Amino acid sequence: MQCLGKSFTLFVIVLFSDLSFSHCGNVLVLPGEYSHWYNMRNIVDELLNRNHSVTVLVSTASPTINFTQQERFQYLVFDVPLKAHEVHSLSEQLVNIWMQYPRPNMVQIGLQIMDVLGKVREMHHIMCDRMLRNETLVSRLTALKFDVLLYDPMIICSDLLANILDLPVVLSLRFSLGFSMERMCGQMPSPPSYVPVPPTEMTDRMCFMERVKNMIVYVVYSFAFRMASMNLDNYYSEVLGKPTTMCETMGKADIWLIRTYWDFEYPRPLLPNFKFVGGLHCKPAKPLPKELEEFVQSSGDHGIVVFSLGSMIGNLTMERANTIASALGQIPQKVVWRYTGKTPETLAPNTKLYDWIPQNDLLGHPKTKAFITHGGTNGLYEAIYHGVPMVGLPLFADQPDNLMHMKTKGAAVVLDINKMQSEDLVDALKTVINNPLYKESIMRLSRIHHDQPMKPLDQAVYWIEFVMRNKGAKHLRVQAHDLSWYQYHCLDVVAFLLSVVALITFLLIKTGCFLFRKCFRKTRPDFKAKKSKKE
Amino acid sequence: MQCLGKSFTLFVIVLFSDLSFSHCGNVLVLPGEYSHWYNMRNIVDELLNRNHSVTVLVSTASPTINFTQQERFQYLVFDVPLKAHEVHSLSEQLVNIWMQYPRPNMVQIGLQIMDVLGKVREMHHIMCDRMLRNETLVSRLTALKFDVLLYDPMIICSDLLANILDLPVVLSLRFSLGFSMERMCGQMPSPPSYVPVPPTEMTDRMCFMERVKNMIVYVVYSFAFRMASMNLDNYYSEVLGKPTTMCETMGKADIWLIRTYWDFEYPRPLLPNFKFVGGLHCKPAKPLPKELEEFVQSSGDHGIVVFSLGSMIGNLTMERANTIASALGQIPQKVVWRYTGKTPETLAPNTKLYDWIPQNDLLGHPKTKAFITHGGTNGLYEAIYHGVPMVGLPLFADQPDNLMHMKTKGAAVVLDINKMQSEDLVDALKTVINNPLYKESIMRLSRIHHDQPMKPLDQAVYWIEFVMRNKGAKHLRVQAHDLSWYQYHCLDVVAFLLSVVALITFLLIKTGCFLFRKCFRKTRPDFKAKKSKKE
Repeated sequence: MQCLGKSFTLFVIVLFSDLSFSHCGNVLVLPGEYSHWYNMRNIVDELLNRNHSVTVLVSTASPTINFTQQERFQYLVFDVPLKAHEVHSLSEQLVNIWMQYPRPNMVQIGLQIMDVLGKVREMHHIMCDRMLRNETLVSRLTALKFDVLLYDPMIICSDLLANILDLPVVLSLRFSLGFSMERMCGQMPSPPSYVPVPPTEMTDRMCFMERVKNMIVYVVYSFAFRMASMNLDNYYSEVLGKPTTMCETMGKADIWLIRTYWDFEYPRPLLPNFKFVGGLHCKPAKPLPKELEEFVQSSGDHGIVVFSLGSMIGNLTMERANTIASALGQIPQKVVWRYTGKTPETLAPNTKLYDWIPQNDLLGHPKTKAFITHGGTNGLYEAIYHGVPMVGLPLFADQPDNLMHMKTKGAAVVLDINKMQSEDLVDALKTVINNPLYKESIMRLSRIHHDQPMKPLDQAVYWIEFVMRNKGAKHLRVQAHDLSWYQYHCLDVVAFLLSVVALITFLLIKTGCFLFRKCFRKTRPDFKAKKSKKE
Repeated sequence: MQCLGKSFTLFVIVLFSDLSFSHCGNVLVLPGEYSHWYNMRNIVDELLNRNHSVTVLVSTASPTINFTQQERFQYLVFDVPLKAHEVHSLSEQLVNIWMQYPRPNMVQIGLQIMDVLGKVREMHHIMCDRMLRNETLVSRLTALKFDVLLYDPMIICSDLLANILDLPVVLSLRFSLGFSMERMCGQMPSPPSYVPVPPTEMTDRMCFMERVKNMIVYVVYSFAFRMASMNLDNYYSEVLGKPTTMCETMGKADIWLIRTYWDFEYPRPLLPNFKFVGGLHCKPAKPLPKELEEFVQSSGDHGIVVFSLGSMIGNLTMERANTIASALGQIPQKVVWRYTGKTPETLAPNTKLYDWIPQNDLLGHPKTKAFITHGGTNGLYEAIYHGVPMVGLPLFADQPDNLMHMKTKGAAVVLDINKMQSEDLVDALKTVINNPLYKESIMRLSRIHHDQPMKPLDQAVYWIEFVMRNKGAKHLRVQAHDLSWYQYHCLDVVAFLLSVVALITFLLIKTGCFLFRKCFRKTRPDFKAKKSKKE
């Protein structure tokens, strides 16, 4: 009975017997890697708590998922001629391009990224082939009779598998570059006049030149996405044996779970099948391990600062580490720093280094005064959930943009990790800790986060269950999917109406000329007559 | 504690003490008339159930609201130099224009409507003046210290009162003609390529010529709305003592409660502060009065048909009534007909006339097989809620469009009440009762209606409470409100970019010409030299 979902009232069950979801669902999951998996893992756990059966399909080259581990769900592993460290190395290369200092110009960065993305594409191609053209695997998946496919578009072609298995689809997405997938595959409207195209570090209040920039970036991303997906379109058509496109296949998703909410996002248009479930991984804090709790308590009234640059950044240059450590030594708070690099020489007694920290439990601790973060979405949401103001040290990808959201909402001070001096970090920490406006702002966001009709995790699971109960959610999917781009933008209609106007104008002019000539003819004979008389 | 709302978990209350809404809220309600009030009344009742205090502000000329009646809430009545029957007569005149048969052409109908709307505008003007320029009333309202204003835009200028009292606003709307208010005041995107402009009786699957029609209607409605609101803009500016517009004032609403949902609507874009609460008035059926239950039970296995043309239509011409009554006599079901006109001569023994029927309880009765309806939204939602297929006899306003939604979703057969013959109605009834596809379709809509994360009434009250708790919902309101129409559509940006392109092209051409001329000059002296040599 538990798999009916908490909000599914008894009344409805009694009234509509065919509504009841008599068997627990069977969910196939194709996860992303790194923080994407850590986020989706929460959905998997909740599905299991509600007695659904979950199968996680993963390649032998996953750098994140330890599929040999015993779990409450089953792993289905497919073999790929790649090693986990090779896949991880590609991600590292991408991070390193962003992390270069002094930073090369944008063209150089673009070329470097293009180069790595080429390798990523090749890797995806191998993975997709090994998954989709593996008859044994596909037969086994078919035999398992899943009710829904839940996937992260980080690994492309998952939607192809849904198509082959004829399964309804729920996808989980933070965002795509320039909202390209959301706009071009999901049909989400995104007016460039007030929806800043991510990640551009702009807000929804743009001056004229920012709107010009936004429009240009929007066009460039759209064009780049179209170019990139053209290659995929052929692959998709080949696999499905009929002409199709990547966007068409992806656009069949029943529900788009977007991993943000209006506490973080600038308000913008959405579609009925877009559900915002940001912070679904957030939980109340659990008690800290004894040693850590003692350290935290030793901070007295000053409290502590939590510092982490996320799971992908283990170390910094010694110079940067020393700058940071010396700054941390100048504040009265104790500092819990997740850092696996070499211990900085300037490390002060108030700072302790840890290989791993229970971040959520620390952020939820009443003594926590501030969070120094790289700006990953998972960490930001934990800070919002627990109401902890931030000092942002963004590193790469969407992190500068994420932190810009927090900065404009008054909940963070953002620094450039490559350029900042010790005193900059000290000032920033003192500001977010001592200026009450930062605490007020983050508490406002926290209130918005907590004051939702349904908790994000419950909402995510609700819509997965909905799709299983109803074999999809077609009633939420806009008809725009069946229109071509020129039909969507009414270009054919406008062309037709302009033609009609042109035709009418033409006819009016012709009629006018005709009438004018008639009058002219009437007078001309007289005129001629007069003329001849004169002659 | 009850006024915190059911979904507001204890955890949040403990964690964020300032989140708790310690006092119950104080709600000012400005209702619409007729079915608008019957719908909003459900929200009022639920607010009262949750211990909020409610004041309903109403004029002495309300044709619907009996403000002398003792209620759980208080009425605040303001005097207007009008009589209730005069106000009602205007509504009747509008209905009669739509109901004319044989129907005049659209131009004549348009002129007649314009004439009545002129009188309605005059009436609104008087009401607004008597409400807004009544210092005693405004002082009393100010003293009552409300937390929120809930209003129906059926009576304009309610938003002006919110502005004067400096209150956050929740508005309740079914739709405005051509989505004009939603689009132009609420900033809701509405692409004409797949969002049929209501009430045009088109669906979201439009052929080319329908899209042309949709685009034209969209432009006409936008233009007409702009014209109509220009007059109001002056009034709004005058009352507020600063230049403003009707749309700007209305657009300040924190939450738009839309009285439909995706069981009824074609999926289309929305905004974060648009909440779809269609069918919030629907309830499980209560037992019928004894006499009615006996009549229903006497129908045996054939069951009954429920027939009502709504609260505004009491009688029909005898010819139409006879056509209908004779059709009803030809079906094996018993018929419960809400009809206050003269008893038709052809009335058969299987049909009983009633001045009033408990419509929701009848539609929820297990013996009910079909519903003959004029297509008002409240009735349609009761049919969806209880899963009863429909025969539609649309009369006026949005009813033909409403029923087109049900027809295209396979849950209704629609007839023209003025043209249909007895056999048409018999055929239609037999079809919806005996063809299982109609029952399946309405049950599908019913499942969609019941399978929501939150019941519509709970959602409506949740967001009203949210606005009271947070003194608004600014985080859901798009920045588009601060843009002019040409900024919103990026016309200034496009003009700028085109100018830049034109300038670059111009410079390129000029440079080309310059270089060309340079080459030309180089050759000309030689040429001249050669020429002079020859000479």
